[in-house]
Amino acid sequence: MTSLDNSTEHRLKALLRDVPDFPKPGILFKDITPLLADGDALRDAGAAMAQPYRSARIDRVVGIESRGFILGALVARELEVGFIPVRKPGKLPALKTSIEYALEYGTDKLEVHTDACDRAARVLVVDDVLATGGTARATCALMERLGAEVVGLSFLLVLEFLRGRDKLEGRRVETVLSL
Amino acid sequence: MTSLDNSTEHRLKALLRDVPDFPKPGILFKDITPLLADGDALRDAGAAMAQPYRSARIDRVVGIESRGFILGALVARELEVGFIPVRKPGKLPALKTSIEYALEYGTDKLEVHTDACDRAARVLVVDDVLATGGTARATCALMERLGAEVVGLSFLLVLEFLRGRDKLEGRRVETVLSL
Repeated sequence: MTSLDNSTEHRLKALLRDVPDFPKPGILFKDITPLLADGDALRDAGAAMAQPYRSARIDRVVGIESRGFILGALVARELEVGFIPVRKPGKLPALKTSIEYALEYGTDKLEVHTDACDRAARVLVVDDVLATGGTARATCALMERLGAEVVGLSFLLVLEFLRGRDKLEGRRVETVLSL
Repeated sequence: MTSLDNSTEHRLKALLRDVPDFPKPGILFKDITPLLADGDALRDAGAAMAQPYRSARIDRVVGIESRGFILGALVARELEVGFIPVRKPGKLPALKTSIEYALEYGTDKLEVHTDACDRAARVLVVDDVLATGGTARATCALMERLGAEVVGLSFLLVLEFLRGRDKLEGRRVETVLSL
């Protein structure tokens, strides 16, 4: 957890919205759009996600499509570094490398430009929510294939009961909110 | 055009990359990822996109999925307001409204939460590139259906030869770069 003061944490958490049965029956979805819509909360969330890494000499922030683009851009801005999009298949135009990873049923794929960063660049992986951790783990592996050093990951929210931290064992995982 | 000084404009433009034959043969794609990857350029692009609207009393920035999320978040941060994602079908969890619009072949669809903003909110629509203008026009119509006032649009880049401004006639259109 970051050193976010309790009142800010409480205020941000109050802006999450529970949506039952999304994306499928039985799932209680944590909707971050009310938090994004609040200017103060948006600023505070970006700053809090960046905070643990301010002295970590990050070269680039890696954002995972699509909600990771919103928060990743803010974290990049806070750390005064560039932004690398990790995208769904077919979206990136130039030479790229891809990784396939397992979902509950079937597989998914993520891509990054092969020249997205220098070899040995120190990168921070950002997404909105750490759920099962599959997407985040694949993103780390993808960046390491480029030669990057994944210094850590930063999430707005971790859903602890899904045990996503287990999939990221040995990596530095920071989160602003935890449920 | 914004009052960006010439050297900044030149520097940002030099960070665009031409990718031939993407997404299909004969198209010369303008890839903004080298610009996003540069920390100074990312900051300057966000500031320049926000600049024309600093005195426009914007309540919310609307970003169009997916690259509009990156720049939209930065512009929202610059203007110190909240962010509204306009998304592809099936991504938003809560009650939403959608708009279908024509592509060169077929149609596409965008969605927004019905409670994304107050009625009469003053919103700024942000995307990376103004091409044919179909997506931007549909986004404006979608927001107006919620009762919002679309104060204007801000793009990083306009491809003038595609005449997207024609589709946005009567609206305020600002762009940092123009090709």
